[in-house]
Amino acid sequence: MSSTVRIALDVMGGDHGPDVVLPGAEIALTRHPDITYLLFGDAKRINEILARHPRLAATSRVVHTDVVVQMDDKPSQALRRGRRVSSMWKAIDAVHVGEADCAVSAGNTGALMAMAKVNLKTMAGISRPAIACLWPTAKGESVVLDVGASIGATAQHLVDMAVMGAAMARIVFDIERPTVGLLNIGVEEIKGVEEVKEAAAALREAEHAGLAYKGFVEGDDIGRGTVDVVVTEGFSGNIALKTAEGTAKQVADYLRGAINRSWMAKLGYLLARGAFHALREKLDPRKSNGGVFLGLNGVVIKSHGGTDAEGFASAVDIGYDMVRYRLLSRIEAGMNDRPQVGASAAADAVSDELQVSS
Amino acid sequence: MSSTVRIALDVMGGDHGPDVVLPGAEIALTRHPDITYLLFGDAKRINEILARHPRLAATSRVVHTDVVVQMDDKPSQALRRGRRVSSMWKAIDAVHVGEADCAVSAGNTGALMAMAKVNLKTMAGISRPAIACLWPTAKGESVVLDVGASIGATAQHLVDMAVMGAAMARIVFDIERPTVGLLNIGVEEIKGVEEVKEAAAALREAEHAGLAYKGFVEGDDIGRGTVDVVVTEGFSGNIALKTAEGTAKQVADYLRGAINRSWMAKLGYLLARGAFHALREKLDPRKSNGGVFLGLNGVVIKSHGGTDAEGFASAVDIGYDMVRYRLLSRIEAGMNDRPQVGASAAADAVSDELQVSS
Repeated sequence: MSSTVRIALDVMGGDHGPDVVLPGAEIALTRHPDITYLLFGDAKRINEILARHPRLAATSRVVHTDVVVQMDDKPSQALRRGRRVSSMWKAIDAVHVGEADCAVSAGNTGALMAMAKVNLKTMAGISRPAIACLWPTAKGESVVLDVGASIGATAQHLVDMAVMGAAMARIVFDIERPTVGLLNIGVEEIKGVEEVKEAAAALREAEHAGLAYKGFVEGDDIGRGTVDVVVTEGFSGNIALKTAEGTAKQVADYLRGAINRSWMAKLGYLLARGAFHALREKLDPRKSNGGVFLGLNGVVIKSHGGTDAEGFASAVDIGYDMVRYRLLSRIEAGMNDRPQVGASAAADAVSDELQVSS
Repeated sequence: MSSTVRIALDVMGGDHGPDVVLPGAEIALTRHPDITYLLFGDAKRINEILARHPRLAATSRVVHTDVVVQMDDKPSQALRRGRRVSSMWKAIDAVHVGEADCAVSAGNTGALMAMAKVNLKTMAGISRPAIACLWPTAKGESVVLDVGASIGATAQHLVDMAVMGAAMARIVFDIERPTVGLLNIGVEEIKGVEEVKEAAAALREAEHAGLAYKGFVEGDDIGRGTVDVVVTEGFSGNIALKTAEGTAKQVADYLRGAINRSWMAKLGYLLARGAFHALREKLDPRKSNGGVFLGLNGVVIKSHGGTDAEGFASAVDIGYDMVRYRLLSRIEAGMNDRPQVGASAAADAVSDELQVSS
């Protein structure tokens, strides 16, 4: 790694493209003056904006690209049209060829993951990448993965995600052995969670140096902050994430509606507005913006497509930390003695009686 | 069906047993005077409480049972110890032998489902039962299933759940063709959702008289109330439900904490307390208490184990409605021309390029 952190940006990605990405990059630069940027996108538009951001301009190199991956492109379309020529591909490729230490894009998730997989390939021993996010909890934040890279997971894949998620958590929370839980449902002896049970057995037996396995957690444990790292396969992880976002918004909407129904409530709101402001800050999705792609030979960060400059800056911050505190070598180290999934007794625990009518 | 609605109660179920179940039954009775109860449990304790509830006593028959299924019994344990002798089994069996129209229990979910399956069996054509809940939304409520009866689902099982969930929604919302969505994640072309895609194709083509299929919905659509019925397999459904409950609690806790930090905010709270009260009402989990077991030859309702009398009464209310408005014959009618899952083109849509490195 060079002494600066070299970040490649897909400037055309996201709902607002350069108008959000470049101001966001500048905000992150004020926090981390050792960043240098490689900016991929429409050079004319980029240079117009850079003219108003001299500090950003001074630390950036612009590389013109003609093709933009659209937010609704399917991954296969994006690869067909955008491979080798789009701003998204070029930002990832800069990591591949060693010109950048990480790539950040607010473009569409499926396309970004497809391109990152094709270009960077998965790390030795990792069968599938995962997307990890930071989830605000009652205690602070937790790392939750996979929130949508792939559907379904073998026991070994769950174990690998535990190792990767813990490596990320060590950086974000600055703790030596983050606690890890496997997301599960409370009803025992249901058929079909063999993978989760086998992963649990492997993690429990291994006593891996890089993580402290705490057992199963349920959906309501995520927001409680019961563990530092919550591991699940991508379908349920994505649904949990979207459901939580939707519920937080729903509660806020109820509250707003209730307050607007009477003048006394409005007056009360004015007096308590410090508290409401604190609530808004705490729930601000921009602060935890930035999905980290784990398991690839390179650091790639996905920003929300609809975020603003402040939110994009958070995604750049995460990329910066992942590079500065050596995410990849931490994952590699963790994988060297990763827990192995073996034959487990847990799979036999389903009773004969239950199978009678199921 | 008799002119009264005959409800069998597992009086010993739940964290508080008779102390919550019996007062809850009395609340439901004031709303539905045409209920008669069969009360299964410790006759001595039940009769002591009935002595203070003459109206409930007048419409109830007590059947003594010695065995109580514990909240932490595994389903196989519960069946071993409680089959034929426990209050939970007897309540279900009353439905089986035609002495009751539905059974309500606040006992443990896994045991209740296992006993219900063994005793009542699944309806003709239905391979697996599902648990449906009422989910508070921005627009009112939606039916969400499966929230934990089984893990994984074939395309046909998802289609059957759509038919069953719509039958329940017709009763609860009093609409002819409830809208139905399949829970999915936004990223397209990921391997592994073939079942969901095939179910979607079958539902779209069938144009079933009992439901209006609206396509895929994501996690944040549930709370938005995008559709009347949300269908998913039980693992992701349970995680979505628990995650939403956890998030609502988390936001309420933040708000309480923020308000308690300053006297001005506390004063504001006092003025706005009507609004906060409305919020609490809206989020009150007791109001939507009552998971409906769908796909069995009988109506069984699961109440939250930790609820109070008001919450248990809601579960009885749901059972009452399901009997009064003929849930079972509606499901049967819907299943007569249920959409058939055939060979679908959707499964072929994954591109070759994507498979290169996945």
